[in-house]
Amino acid sequence: MYELIKTNISKHIAVTNAEWDYFFSLTEEKIIPKKEFIIKEGEVCNLHGFILDGFLRTYFVDDKGNEVNLTFHFEDWWFGDIGSFVRREPSKLNTQAMEDTRTLILYREGLEDLFERLPKFERFFRILNQRTFATLLERYIDDQTKSAAQRYKQLIARRPEILSKVPQHHIASYLGITKEFLSKIRSQKNI
Amino acid sequence: MYELIKTNISKHIAVTNAEWDYFFSLTEEKIIPKKEFIIKEGEVCNLHGFILDGFLRTYFVDDKGNEVNLTFHFEDWWFGDIGSFVRREPSKLNTQAMEDTRTLILYREGLEDLFERLPKFERFFRILNQRTFATLLERYIDDQTKSAAQRYKQLIARRPEILSKVPQHHIASYLGITKEFLSKIRSQKNI
Repeated sequence: MYELIKTNISKHIAVTNAEWDYFFSLTEEKIIPKKEFIIKEGEVCNLHGFILDGFLRTYFVDDKGNEVNLTFHFEDWWFGDIGSFVRREPSKLNTQAMEDTRTLILYREGLEDLFERLPKFERFFRILNQRTFATLLERYIDDQTKSAAQRYKQLIARRPEILSKVPQHHIASYLGITKEFLSKIRSQKNI
Repeated sequence: MYELIKTNISKHIAVTNAEWDYFFSLTEEKIIPKKEFIIKEGEVCNLHGFILDGFLRTYFVDDKGNEVNLTFHFEDWWFGDIGSFVRREPSKLNTQAMEDTRTLILYREGLEDLFERLPKFERFFRILNQRTFATLLERYIDDQTKSAAQRYKQLIARRPEILSKVPQHHIASYLGITKEFLSKIRSQKNI
């Protein structure tokens, strides 16, 4: 059971059967029904979650009231607002299920117990955080150094599942462009 | 010696004298002369560094050839391109000394030895990475939800040393505005 998350974690640390039992005793399986939120703007995020199957999106609302998509999360992905979690401040993010999504949740207390008892998980979450940081930094730089067409091409090359799963207007919001401009990019032959 | 870094790390983990000896045996003190670079675009960043005294700035170059300042680092700050470090990919960042800057450097090998022998440092770097991520995420969201005037006000409220140390054109580049527009903001009475 839960082979997906075991494989995900085992890429970075070796965990014994007894340690897995302890790990899973700290987690909670949670179905997030389509359109419902697991992280909400204005509330402190007290969890890290892992997607067993389904599909979430994380967005914030800009000063014009537009939803700006920050990330799409599919199965085998971790999610959570690390900023809100570590600072214990209200989140500026919203994470919403785009379809019924089965997740495994580690709440703050469980995570603290885990680090206390099995410090090797510090290593796993250190590496996970580094990779999340690298992704955000790349996005921040790409936004200011690459055209929307280049960023679109890169997105679908790296994550082709987005094309089939994510509605066009959400991809446009991720790229910071209108749906109409995205259609124009998609119709260009060199894309 | 090195009380600054010991205090910085001791906020999150307890380190014995023997462990400090080992930690410092892995570090290298390095003076970065004014205008020289410790991280360079196109080269893999293989280090994490700590500023003992001095002042660095980290920037990238946008598609119009402008330098965009990402961060100013003062004493008691960590620096490094986590993305380049973890992915072993060429950095897109430049970290330059704004004055002669005394640093303590941990290279990749030393850091790996440290994690192997003293796993508690995984915890420290996990927390450090989380905070760095939180800062970048906040900046990303602020850029799209707050005016330049609001961001300027927030910057100098939180980090007043920037006003006295950082040249105006570098603050303008941090805020993504021209030097002239920054002067206009500064001359407004409500700032």
